[in-house]
Amino acid sequence: MKNSNDFYYVPTHWSNFIYDFPQFVSREKLDLRAIYGNNISHKVNVIPQQPLALIRQSHNTQDAYVPIPEELLEYYYQYRPTPLKRANGLEAHLKVNARIYYKFEGANLSGSHKLNTALAQAYYYKKAGIKHLVTGTGAGQWGTAIAYACQIMNLECTVFMVGVSLRQKPYRKTMMELFGATVHESPSELTKVGRDALKIDKERIGSLAFATGEAIEYAQVNSDCRFAVGSGENCVLLHQSIIGCEAVAQMHTLDDFPTDVVACMGAGSNFGGVGLPFLRFAKELGKSTRLLAVEPSACPKLTRGVYAYDKNDFSGTTPISKMYTLGSKYMAPPIYAGGLRYHGTSPFLSAMYHDDLFDALAIDQPETLAAGLLLARTENILPAPESAHAVAGAIRLAKDHPHDSEPLVILINVSGHGMFDVTSYEKFQKGEVESGRPSENSLKTSLQEVGKFNELVKVTKAETKIK
Amino acid sequence: MKNSNDFYYVPTHWSNFIYDFPQFVSREKLDLRAIYGNNISHKVNVIPQQPLALIRQSHNTQDAYVPIPEELLEYYYQYRPTPLKRANGLEAHLKVNARIYYKFEGANLSGSHKLNTALAQAYYYKKAGIKHLVTGTGAGQWGTAIAYACQIMNLECTVFMVGVSLRQKPYRKTMMELFGATVHESPSELTKVGRDALKIDKERIGSLAFATGEAIEYAQVNSDCRFAVGSGENCVLLHQSIIGCEAVAQMHTLDDFPTDVVACMGAGSNFGGVGLPFLRFAKELGKSTRLLAVEPSACPKLTRGVYAYDKNDFSGTTPISKMYTLGSKYMAPPIYAGGLRYHGTSPFLSAMYHDDLFDALAIDQPETLAAGLLLARTENILPAPESAHAVAGAIRLAKDHPHDSEPLVILINVSGHGMFDVTSYEKFQKGEVESGRPSENSLKTSLQEVGKFNELVKVTKAETKIK
Repeated sequence: MKNSNDFYYVPTHWSNFIYDFPQFVSREKLDLRAIYGNNISHKVNVIPQQPLALIRQSHNTQDAYVPIPEELLEYYYQYRPTPLKRANGLEAHLKVNARIYYKFEGANLSGSHKLNTALAQAYYYKKAGIKHLVTGTGAGQWGTAIAYACQIMNLECTVFMVGVSLRQKPYRKTMMELFGATVHESPSELTKVGRDALKIDKERIGSLAFATGEAIEYAQVNSDCRFAVGSGENCVLLHQSIIGCEAVAQMHTLDDFPTDVVACMGAGSNFGGVGLPFLRFAKELGKSTRLLAVEPSACPKLTRGVYAYDKNDFSGTTPISKMYTLGSKYMAPPIYAGGLRYHGTSPFLSAMYHDDLFDALAIDQPETLAAGLLLARTENILPAPESAHAVAGAIRLAKDHPHDSEPLVILINVSGHGMFDVTSYEKFQKGEVESGRPSENSLKTSLQEVGKFNELVKVTKAETKIK
Repeated sequence: MKNSNDFYYVPTHWSNFIYDFPQFVSREKLDLRAIYGNNISHKVNVIPQQPLALIRQSHNTQDAYVPIPEELLEYYYQYRPTPLKRANGLEAHLKVNARIYYKFEGANLSGSHKLNTALAQAYYYKKAGIKHLVTGTGAGQWGTAIAYACQIMNLECTVFMVGVSLRQKPYRKTMMELFGATVHESPSELTKVGRDALKIDKERIGSLAFATGEAIEYAQVNSDCRFAVGSGENCVLLHQSIIGCEAVAQMHTLDDFPTDVVACMGAGSNFGGVGLPFLRFAKELGKSTRLLAVEPSACPKLTRGVYAYDKNDFSGTTPISKMYTLGSKYMAPPIYAGGLRYHGTSPFLSAMYHDDLFDALAIDQPETLAAGLLLARTENILPAPESAHAVAGAIRLAKDHPHDSEPLVILINVSGHGMFDVTSYEKFQKGEVESGRPSENSLKTSLQEVGKFNELVKVTKAETKIK
């Protein structure tokens, strides 16, 4: 008996980008070692213990490919491969000199690419004997994914969800609860981090730095519980590489290869997941592929932030990272793309960006929502407001490309669906949506704080070296 | 350049079930001719003019296959083929003597199989020069599909949506509006049908008979507007045969063939669409395939209704049909599977059922929602409450099958997703969901009215014959 899976190609290995760019993981490690010391003025803990498998994945410079455990593959097969299609309708509408493709990660039950790492983390934590995971979520895609993964792996699940997103999208909360998770509106009164945050955020808009901080404190207080991380860490990017591996094979079947891969940029997991495997294969095939990260102008860490040491969350108890950041207390305007409101980004991708290994672009909210609706109209897919950034970026690329040169070949990663965001799109259609740009003042203040913090780090590093 | 569509098999023809069973279309025509006359006591009009192409499709006994117009195929390619997968997770959970497969029609933007006929109807109406379509919708899947189809074909769209469903699922309304449709809560004050209905339905629960009646009156009053029909008619079943044609090919690729095809039963379009092509191919291949229609016990037209003449809607102006019915004024309890609350069913399928050509089963609401959640947990798909009936029916079949005989091969059609139904599932989890069974009294009263109406029809037929 053949299995329907025989139809399809699902990669059996993750593609390890650290093997391709070992210089960026060692640079990060060096920096972290340098500043870990008793002299540093704020408390530093390692993220509440991850299973060894995940820690190894985050630092593995040895293996080009990492095998996906068989049990995990069974779960991947339930929703993978995800479709990769030529955007005939969009191309016909735009009349640009480009072949446009998109990969759609939103057709699984959790609604986004986040499930790729949620299943992997739940699997490794379960193997390590853990019974309960906690996390912070912005727009709720990550929270839904981890709630689902915990349910099928029989783990307990607690989620702190950014207040503004929870109120914009109550169905997201319902969905997590349906999978048996306990959901708290963040900032909450439950944790010290939450109570502190409420002092400066009386309207409970919330931010991922708050929600993550609350989750980390929760994991520190409840010893049977571990913190699951939605994005940014290398092991997460590794799990997400399944998107790119699959897409490389699918593009190959279509006899084509992208000149440009476009994804939205939060902390980097969907961007890195789809993009980094293409850099490897472009090199092997002697092709040139550029990656474009699209961020909201509400949270422009790559295009207007600084490359500096910063805290990952509001608790200040996790390792600090060198990364592109707007400051851990930066409160991004409450745009609908809640998943892109995180103040910093993956240290690994930050180092790559610092070395000009990919491009970035910030786009206002109305342009992204218009692009999302255009995709719905022309391709029968309503992207999440986050993923709509990638669509908007791709449209800009295509429109800017001259008609008399070689056509671009653009691959867009549509990381999630926008079914629970219909009211956001409705507001856009009514003309009620703002650009989302922060006030120059709030940006300046936040960046100044990052500057001060880095003066402190510099001193600490110097002292550490003397020893 | 290959297109991604080359990956896939999408049928280029619809499979015409009337060719396989011409006896049922002639019986229907004879009956209709017999009762069309001036003597009949209530006003009878033909459904506001359909384009000739659709009328022909509803009566075509000549062609085994009907080619799908090329422009329409382009739109189908955007979301077809839909996945057909072996339900490994569900099988492992149930430990039954059956191989279970499911086809998922819910991954398109409108969320259900309804898009297959919405696109076809919008295409044919547009070709006929029509600029505006109106319809009635229950749970909103049909309304969303026709709104989407109208938008991409540049037609105006008006939808009357059953009140209770609209209030259960406000996102459905938003989504239709996002596609540019105008949505009215039915019964409404806009039409005479609606105003009459409000007299007996003060809480504005609504029914498809009301909503359809309002839409038909609206089309009669607005001469530039035509009524689009969501289910029940032969042309609709023809368009939906693309599900079964695709599924036959997919099962073939998997070296398997179903012994049982299970679908939920509203007016019959998803049931007929997936099931009838299998009857044809089973015959050709010398196999035996049974079809099972699963209806809610809230609206048990096949299992507790009568095979009799009845009105299709509350307006009483459309052709009456001989079909399995509970009476056009029957108000099904407000179950979450709003798409299955229609009082009657396809005349063609009714005639087939009357000749024992397929089986039917009525299931209570909690059992169906439990089955839906089980599918979510084991297969990463949350079915619409309607489609959950098919899952529940398949589970019953599989559980009842002895372990020492040949395994069943069950194909479930999951006609739509349940993303907008999470609150219904939540209520079920909290134990707040009732069986949905109607009071014996309301059922009896409604069936008595059907009886009286049929006495009238009998007299009219006799008189017509005399002439």
